[in-house]
Amino acid sequence: MAATTGTSDHIYKILELVGSSEKSIEDAIQNAISRASKTIREMKWFEVVQTRGHVENGAVGHYQVTLRVGFTLEE
Amino acid sequence: MAATTGTSDHIYKILELVGSSEKSIEDAIQNAISRASKTIREMKWFEVVQTRGHVENGAVGHYQVTLRVGFTLEE
Amino acid sequence: MAATTGTSDHIYKILELVGSSEKSIEDAIQNAISRASKTIREMKWFEVVQTRGHVENGAVGHYQVTLRVGFTLEE
Amino acid sequence: MAATTGTSDHIYKILELVGSSEKSIEDAIQNAISRASKTIREMKWFEVVQTRGHVENGAVGHYQVTLRVGFTLEE
Amino acid sequence: MAATTGTSDHIYKILELVGSSEKSIEDAIQNAISRASKTIREMKWFEVVQTRGHVENGAVGHYQVTLRVGFTLEE
Amino acid sequence: MAATTGTSDHIYKILELVGSSEKSIEDAIQNAISRASKTIREMKWFEVVQTRGHVENGAVGHYQVTLRVGFTLEE
Amino acid sequence: MAATTGTSDHIYKILELVGSSEKSIEDAIQNAISRASKTIREMKWFEVVQTRGHVENGAVGHYQVTLRVGFTLEE
Amino acid sequence: MAATTGTSDHIYKILELVGSSEKSIEDAIQNAISRASKTIREMKWFEVVQTRGHVENGAVGHYQVTLRVGFTLEE
Amino acid sequence: MAATTGTSDHIYKILELVGSSEKSIEDAIQNAISRASKTIREMKWFEVVQTRGHVENGAVGHYQVTLRVGFTLEE
Amino acid sequence: MAATTGTSDHIYKILELVGSSEKSIEDAIQNAISRASKTIREMKWFEVVQTRGHVENGAVGHYQVTLRVGFTLEE
Amino acid sequence: MAATTGTSDHIYKILELVGSSEKSIEDAIQNAISRASKTIREMKWFEVVQTRGHVENGAVGHYQVTLRVGFTLEE
Amino acid sequence: MAATTGTSDHIYKILELVGSSEKSIEDAIQNAISRASKTIREMKWFEVVQTRGHVENGAVGHYQVTLRVGFTLEE
Repeated sequence: MAATTGTSDHIYKILELVGSSEKSIEDAIQNAISRASKTIREMKWFEVVQTRGHVENGAVGHYQVTLRVGFTLEE
Repeated sequence: MAATTGTSDHIYKILELVGSSEKSIEDAIQNAISRASKTIREMKWFEVVQTRGHVENGAVGHYQVTLRVGFTLEE
Repeated sequence: MAATTGTSDHIYKILELVGSSEKSIEDAIQNAISRASKTIREMKWFEVVQTRGHVENGAVGHYQVTLRVGFTLEE
Repeated sequence: MAATTGTSDHIYKILELVGSSEKSIEDAIQNAISRASKTIREMKWFEVVQTRGHVENGAVGHYQVTLRVGFTLEE
Repeated sequence: MAATTGTSDHIYKILELVGSSEKSIEDAIQNAISRASKTIREMKWFEVVQTRGHVENGAVGHYQVTLRVGFTLEE
Repeated sequence: MAATTGTSDHIYKILELVGSSEKSIEDAIQNAISRASKTIREMKWFEVVQTRGHVENGAVGHYQVTLRVGFTLEE
Repeated sequence: MAATTGTSDHIYKILELVGSSEKSIEDAIQNAISRASKTIREMKWFEVVQTRGHVENGAVGHYQVTLRVGFTLEE
Repeated sequence: MAATTGTSDHIYKILELVGSSEKSIEDAIQNAISRASKTIREMKWFEVVQTRGHVENGAVGHYQVTLRVGFTLEE
Repeated sequence: MAATTGTSDHIYKILELVGSSEKSIEDAIQNAISRASKTIREMKWFEVVQTRGHVENGAVGHYQVTLRVGFTLEE
Repeated sequence: MAATTGTSDHIYKILELVGSSEKSIEDAIQNAISRASKTIREMKWFEVVQTRGHVENGAVGHYQVTLRVGFTLEE
Repeated sequence: MAATTGTSDHIYKILELVGSSEKSIEDAIQNAISRASKTIREMKWFEVVQTRGHVENGAVGHYQVTLRVGFTLEE
Repeated sequence: MAATTGTSDHIYKILELVGSSEKSIEDAIQNAISRASKTIREMKWFEVVQTRGHVENGAVGHYQVTLRVGFTLEE
């Protein structure tokens, strides 16, 4: 949906993750990205696939955001 | 999209709600959940179906978030 | 998904925009609305089509939110 | 898809209905709205989800229109 | 989307058709059903897949409605 | 997707339910229908919206099937 | 969904509009086409994206139809 | 979604069918395939498009499964 | 998605086909159209529904393109 | 679509699998889960993406069910 | 679906175009981009929305490709 | 969408990749398949999920094609 990067010879692999947070949708996204960055180095972009969450005592307990994350396969 | 709960014999009913907020998407979600919790006790999860909003004077006036909310039908 | 406005004789045109922000999804929406309001006066509503973003050094670099924005065609 | 209403603090509930008519799609919509208005007072908008119908003797017997109908939850 | 018929042992075949009319969406549906009834006897139901049309001189020239039509395969 | 019923003047309401079963998809559907029939009399048809489930010790723990169920609104 | 026009070298631009009418879906489509024809000359076709409307006093107040409209970019 | 067959020069035609069964989803699929095999010889694969059914006396009366079925067009 | 044809009284039937080619996506489309033209005369347009293929020894073995093809039902 | 689990700090990874069975849809799901459990320990849930199969001699040869499977990324 | 560009403060506008070619899908895309570049300078990316075409004498007459094209709104 | 392979006891895993090429859509698909074949041996089929690209100086800079690729999990 957004602009593509400069060089044309990259191959990306797409990973699907679910991140959680009690604070916000953005924090759930960041938690998933942070956890994945422990094992995957060349993450470039993400796309939100679904936003959902848990209700506890009539309030939002935590958010769960499903992401597709693209990273470069190194040559 | 997220993990299922422990026991297998629950029947859920799904309700569709639209919550609003001038502050944030998360606040619109919370407003819908809070209002529904006045009459529904066993809400367990929600899923965001659509995020939209109102524009006033070239700025976001308020957010409107459509949710599907699942709650347990008591036996 | 939300209630329609009062008078029935309006014709809307829908524009599709992508806004960005390093801070939040709401800020990316607001940036797109603000920029568009420089040339379009009668914006009334928006709808989020897609939420994605850029990853930099294992963290969210910025959010990119695609919006459909409706504005009144003046008679 | 259309403009949102004035005040930002409304919570809507969405109901799904199927209306029928031998005459027209508009009449099937109107029949569902009329029937629902007997028990629900604050209906504000509807959205057509599906249009289908019955064939009898090589002609349209009746139309069946599935609607999502939004109404205000009173505070 | 609507109720199923009485007996459980029917096999239906689904045909996809596009009907046209200068008058209305309903008339385009009826034209497709009428034409198909010349060769298919046991048509039971239809579902609208898409509604589109032709513009001529700033006005709707004709409507084109794509239908899925179900008919019984006779034993 | 299936044939429509005989008379044209029915108005249906659609309810969304999630049924569970450790045995099969069909049993999860039946459990949701049985539970709903305690309070709703005139259920006529259902449509499977999603099939998912729980994994326990490398095996399917139970199935969860989301249904849209249509019932007649009595005049 | 329908047949394509004769010559192969046309480039079309697609515009998205919402038309309204108190009378019918067809009238809402015609209103959007008429209004757009004041500034766009070479409109060729339209496609209905969504049909929704406003409820007033338990009846349909007006219909709102979202269209994608294609017109030729002149060389 | 599954692997493609050996030779590359096949042309398939796709047929859409609805099968029914009082017993199970699999039996409804098999009934549609069996009935179609009376007139179509080279059926190769199927894909489930929709699963729905009939409710009778608070229980599933029968299942109705819509299939897309592919068969080879002989040269 | 493209312009509609001249006269308004045509009824189209839509056929779904899968064409294959070892060379290209365009060639797979052409192969399906050529094969279908042996028995169907008045084909007017096609729409690509899905593009997939076979992998052999780490390379594309052949492409498989699913098409919806519209043809005029003669009066 | 179902309830979310207890603690909020889990990150899930989603894997996509296709399982097969000559017996039933449930057996195809179980086969995919069993095979994946050889290398993945913390599988929690699955979601059916597509159900299809092979036709042999006018009968269902085997079912193929595509699943999205979620498992916990250990901290 | 692909990586996002460097700076985070860009606002994009999305335009929808249909390009045609008798030669290939790629040529139809290029024709639409070339034509649009006469009036829009900062086009950055495109996304294929639909591929269809015209059949003439049992062969593909021309391809028609619908694109969403993103370009930077200059500050 | 295409025929399934011979034996029924295969389990496939699906991988999502983005390939690029300055030449054509087919070349972008082939580049992704070639790169993946360095580490994955039993790739069987692919399915195009999205086709997009980069615009440079009013022309297509390169194509980016997102694929789902299926490969056999060896027993």
